[in-house]
Formats: sequence, structure tokens, C-alpha cells
Amino acid sequence: MKKLIICAIMLAAGVSSYAQQALFGGANAKSPEINADKTVTFRFVAPKAISVKVTGDFLPTRKVEVPNFGSMEMPGQADLVEKDGVWEYTTPTPVAPEMYTYSFIVDGQTMVDPNNVYMNRDVSTVSNLLYVDGNEVVDLYKVQDVPHGTVSKIWYHSAKENMDRRLTVYTPAGYETSGKKYPVLYLLHGIGGDEEAWYTQGRSTQILDNLIAQGKAKPMIVVMTNGNISMEAAPGEGSEGLTVPTMGLPKTMEGTFETDFPEIISFIDKTFRTQANKKGRAIAGLSMGGFHSLHISKQYPDKFNYVGLFSAAIGVTDPKISPIYGDFDKKLDILFSKKNRPALFYIACGNTDFLFKANSDFRAQLDAKGYPYKYYETDGGHIWRNWRKYLADFTPRIFK
Amino acid sequence: MKKLIICAIMLAAGVSSYAQQALFGGANAKSPEINADKTVTFRFVAPKAISVKVTGDFLPTRKVEVPNFGSMEMPGQADLVEKDGVWEYTTPTPVAPEMYTYSFIVDGQTMVDPNNVYMNRDVSTVSNLLYVDGNEVVDLYKVQDVPHGTVSKIWYHSAKENMDRRLTVYTPAGYETSGKKYPVLYLLHGIGGDEEAWYTQGRSTQILDNLIAQGKAKPMIVVMTNGNISMEAAPGEGSEGLTVPTMGLPKTMEGTFETDFPEIISFIDKTFRTQANKKGRAIAGLSMGGFHSLHISKQYPDKFNYVGLFSAAIGVTDPKISPIYGDFDKKLDILFSKKNRPALFYIACGNTDFLFKANSDFRAQLDAKGYPYKYYETDGGHIWRNWRKYLADFTPRIFK
Repeated sequence: MKKLIICAIMLAAGVSSYAQQALFGGANAKSPEINADKTVTFRFVAPKAISVKVTGDFLPTRKVEVPNFGSMEMPGQADLVEKDGVWEYTTPTPVAPEMYTYSFIVDGQTMVDPNNVYMNRDVSTVSNLLYVDGNEVVDLYKVQDVPHGTVSKIWYHSAKENMDRRLTVYTPAGYETSGKKYPVLYLLHGIGGDEEAWYTQGRSTQILDNLIAQGKAKPMIVVMTNGNISMEAAPGEGSEGLTVPTMGLPKTMEGTFETDFPEIISFIDKTFRTQANKKGRAIAGLSMGGFHSLHISKQYPDKFNYVGLFSAAIGVTDPKISPIYGDFDKKLDILFSKKNRPALFYIACGNTDFLFKANSDFRAQLDAKGYPYKYYETDGGHIWRNWRKYLADFTPRIFK
Repeated sequence: MKKLIICAIMLAAGVSSYAQQALFGGANAKSPEINADKTVTFRFVAPKAISVKVTGDFLPTRKVEVPNFGSMEMPGQADLVEKDGVWEYTTPTPVAPEMYTYSFIVDGQTMVDPNNVYMNRDVSTVSNLLYVDGNEVVDLYKVQDVPHGTVSKIWYHSAKENMDRRLTVYTPAGYETSGKKYPVLYLLHGIGGDEEAWYTQGRSTQILDNLIAQGKAKPMIVVMTNGNISMEAAPGEGSEGLTVPTMGLPKTMEGTFETDFPEIISFIDKTFRTQANKKGRAIAGLSMGGFHSLHISKQYPDKFNYVGLFSAAIGVTDPKISPIYGDFDKKLDILFSKKNRPALFYIACGNTDFLFKANSDFRAQLDAKGYPYKYYETDGGHIWRNWRKYLADFTPRIFK
């Protein structure tokens, strides 16, 4: 009788959710399949398709000429081969441990793998996740059997923008009942991202849970902001509804987010048990978030004792856009003065990143002044793979 | 210069995320498009496809014969028509206000709409969201410009199962700084669901934000549990990693979740500012969650003053499976005794639900005993559309 009830509910759930696949036991092909030798097989059922390719960052990149820009590295592609209606591709060699994203291209149309429910949205594109384990860094991205922090979606009121805006806040395991005060890392996303980027693609909560459990990082609060000042929240999560997300939002990299930032600090210090002083604060960000971190830390030199620039969008900025960008050198001198100098100024960049030269130039400027910083150079370019690695390298160095 | 930097970051982000679509300004077709007359147009770019259909709960259902079960209502389908490589379908009549899900079927293969980033996972199937506004109930599902509560993913330790398990907890706007104690609604999902179901498909946080802002519901904490006792958390969120989710999990509807439930209450009362008594507690659930709510409320008759059964999986249960299911009538008598009788015992069901008869039989049992309950009957079957409606109807009635 119990089985019959469960069966009936499952059938009904199948109807309600159009989950015929779920109803009859899950996927119609196993994809992706990580084989014993760590090669990976992708499968796609499409008896009538003419061509099926897979594209993803597990494949070598290919050069593409972009008009008015030059040569860009674009994701590689591989052809699937059809047999009995099932298209299949197995990597010729083992795939190195990493968290990858991939999609299929079916008769020219990019689409996700219908047999893989694990996906990430990145701006207006959704792709599937492929996780290959096997080394210490990649293990940090896994949910492990360690104490877990809490992740909250919480809204603050911006008086300056007259709107409520959403934050993602990680509080470490034990926060709720410890009565202790914690230091705070403000962690900023890149262009097109939002307050969910570090939580999803960035695996920030898994990285922090694991590093804290290993005793390598101090228990800390991590505040993941939304740096697109005209947005309330990630696409679909604000009162604008289910609109099509786009890049290049208005009021991005024009000084408002940086100018308003003390509102966020004040909200966090009021709402959470924080070490509400410079020693208890860090700021770091990737790409545009690195740009924001740089300008915020030098605009408010008494606020952050640890600064992390991950593949930062460093470049000449025009003080006519915002006074935040004015007096760059002078503000840098103030930030690195004896009184204000951060305990850690951290720069990380991939050696094929299109921002590598901008970061090298900036380092030369710091070197010329004798301003100390920690530098971490990796292979690769402007990619999440590097940003997760930088976060895992940066967080053990702060709040010591 | 600023424009060039932004452009370069966008290009690079495009490379990093394989977001070529995003890179060149978003989608390659507008889909879904809600037209001025509230008809909806779906589009799919596939010049080489032979057939493209759309399926979803905005279409009339169709009857399908299921072996050993009988006739089932299955989702409707409609054909898209191709012109210049773009397949298109427009509904012949306006689509009624609702939050729908849909997918495409391309040459027989079910897949999501590549131009719509809004999706829900339901067990092992992912489908797209279509939101058509236009009435008061459906407005409750929207993020509106009202004070927003906080949604937390928080882990408790189950001593009985020797594992950490995840909960989704909604705390109402103002919770963090009010110093007040709040009543708690425990809100349970159906089979195949998890602690994310009421938060995603259920729109529970939007419904609560809006009803509280309108003064219709009391500010309350809502605890969304994971009723699959062998799981730590929703698929992909626990230490088992990115495995293929399936229905019919072990240790579901066999008494353990119900037996262990006081562990969750105790964790919540220790961790949040709750009204930690019967008057301050409600329990409600859909389908399997209604079954759980029924058995938990009568097993612990001193714990819940409000009980909600939404399309509940009511049926004969075998005490040999668990003592929780034994002495059904006697426990019901105790629950409805003068000492324990809940202030509200609420039953809701759709009139085409396959569980309609089971719920009618149960109501007849209550009627025969003279046990009072509130009954809400709607059109339709075993679907989220009804469960959202029941939540919006139930929550204003509790904690009065």
C-alpha cells in the first residue's frame, strides 16, 4: 500500500512538473560520465540531429579574430559522434581536476545538457557544471563533511539610492550561538555578475567552510555585494521581475557603488556581530570587483587592513566620471602611508589574462614607490578557475 | 577609455563563461514574449530541426494511458512553425495570470529554452519559468517593493542520524534588529522535493513578504525542511556531490523523519528568537509533506497549534513500518481532545487531484467525530499552482 501511494505521488509529481524523465527513473543518457581513467564522456540523445558539438573550458581554447579588438582566445569545441541516435564524445586524455562549465551545440544552437541538472547562470548564459576531483585545491570546492556556515540572502536599505538591495552573507559555522565577534571580508564580483556569483561559480562558501575546518583560515563573515548599483538584486530576484539580463548595466564603474560603499559596511556592522574596525575588515574582488576594491580601499584608507585584487580591471580612469577616480597617485600615497598601510595588499593575475599588462604596470608603479604587496601569478586567463584559486590563497593570509 | 575597459572585460567574461550570446547582447531570439494582449509567443532558433514543440502547464492537459495505473492527465503540447530558421508558437488566446513552467521538445528531445535563463529544477528535470501577471494572488508571487525578509541556508546536526542536514529558513523583515520573538511555521515539501522546493517553485518568501507587508499575515519565521531523511541537503548541496537526483529515496515516508522532527524544533528554538511554545508553532506541507504534517502533529499533540494539509498524501499506513503510523484513530482523538485541539486544522485539495478521494474520506472521518477543520477546495490537481495558492490562504489564518 505504501509503495502504491508513493508510486501515485511520483506519477502525479511527474505530471505537475512535466518530469516524465524523473518519473521513469531519471536521465535518458548518462552525461557527463567521469570514467575510471578520468577521461570524461558526454552524451546527447538526438537521432535526427545533423551535428552535435560540446564546448567548454575543459577543452583547449582556439583563437578567434574579433573585429576592432584583435585575436581572442575562445572556448574549444569537440564533435560528438552518433550511434543509434545517441551522440557521444570521450576526451582523448584524462581531464585534470577542476570545476568546469560546458554546453552542447546542436545544429548550431547552443544548449545545456538535458541530462545534467547542475547549471550555473553567468549573466544571460546558462551552462552545465562538470566537477572532476583529485587534488587539494579542487577538494576545497566540494561540500565536505565539516561544519557548515550559513548563507543568507539579506536586504539592506540604500538611503543614497533610495532602494532596497540584496546581499549574500556567509557566517561561519557556530556564528549563531557563539556570541563572538568576527572579522568581515567584503567579496566583490566582476562585470555582469551579481551577489550570487561568488556563491555559485566562486564556491566561496565551500572554500571557506573547508579552509576554516582545516584551521587554515580564521572564521570570518563574507559579504558578497551586488556591484551593479542600479540593480536591487540578481536577475529575477528583484522587483523588475523575470527580465532578460544583460551586461553593461548603467551605473557600473562610474563611481556610485564605490561612493555608497560605507552604507553597506554600516549595515553589516549594525546587523552582524563584527569586529567593526580596520583590523577586522578585508576587501577583495575579481575583474571589475578588483577595480572596485582598489578604488574603495584608497578612498577609505582607514577602513580595510587587507586588500585583494584578483585579475583586477586596473586602468586609467577619468576623474570627470567620478571624484572617486581623481587624485589616484595621491590617494595611493595616503593608503600606503605609515598610518594607513594595509597589513596585506594582494595582487593576483593569470599570465595570459588580457589584464596582465595593466596589472604589471600597476605593480611597477608600486615597486617604484617601494609600496609592499604580495603577488601571486598563475597560468591562464580571466577565468573563474583562477578566481577560486586566488580566494583559496588569499583568505588564509587575512585576519592573522 | 572607460568604455574600452568595460568592453574588454565583457569580451573576456564572454570567453571565460562561454557566454558568446551574452557577449553580443543577450539572446538570439526573444522567448518567451508576453504580448500586449497577454498571448504568449515562444521562439526557438533551429534551422535544421524537423520538429519543435512546446510543452507546459499553460496548455490544456491531454489524457495518456499509463500501464497498470489507468488514465493520467499529462501536459499538453503545441507545435512551433518554422520561418527562416526560427520556430515560433503564439497561444491562440490570452494566457491567464499564473507562474508556469515549460520546455521545448526538439526532434523528440526535451530541452530548456536557451533564451530564458529562469529555470526551476524539480527532482531530475529542469524547466523554464513563465510568469504572467494580472491578478491579486499571482501578484503575491512577485518580488515587490516591500520590506524583504532574509532567507538562510543553515545546517543543524541530527544526533539521531549522525549527520549535518540543511534547512532553508525565512526570517521576516526586521528580524535581525527587532529583538522580538516570532512564531514559526514549519513548511514541508512533497516527494522528490527538498529544502529548496518551497523557496523556488513555492515562492514562499515572496508570498510571506507581500502578505506581511499588506498586514494580512503576522511576521513569522518559516522553516523549510528536507524530508528525505537520508539526504544532507538538496542535490548538489551535500557531500555526495553532483550526483544524479532520483525520486523514491530510501527512508522517505517510513517514520524516521517524523520521529526525528523534535530535533529540528529544538535546533530552531535554540538558534532563532522564537515563540517556543504550541501557540507559536504551525506545521504545513504539500503531498508527502502533508502526510508528514499529519503524522507529526498527531504524534506530538502538544507542539503545533496550526496544522495545514495541502493535497496531503493521506492513506492507510502500516504500523509495522513505524510506530508513528500506529494507533491512528486514537492519536487523532488525542490531537482533537479539548486539551490539545489545534486552533486551526486546515485541509486543502484540488477537485481533480488523484488524492481528492483520500482527502474526502479523511474529512468524512473528522466529520463523523465532530472534529472541526477548515476546508479549501480548488479546481485542478496535484500541482504547484494550487500549493502556492494554499500557502497564501493558510498563512493569514495562523498566529492570530
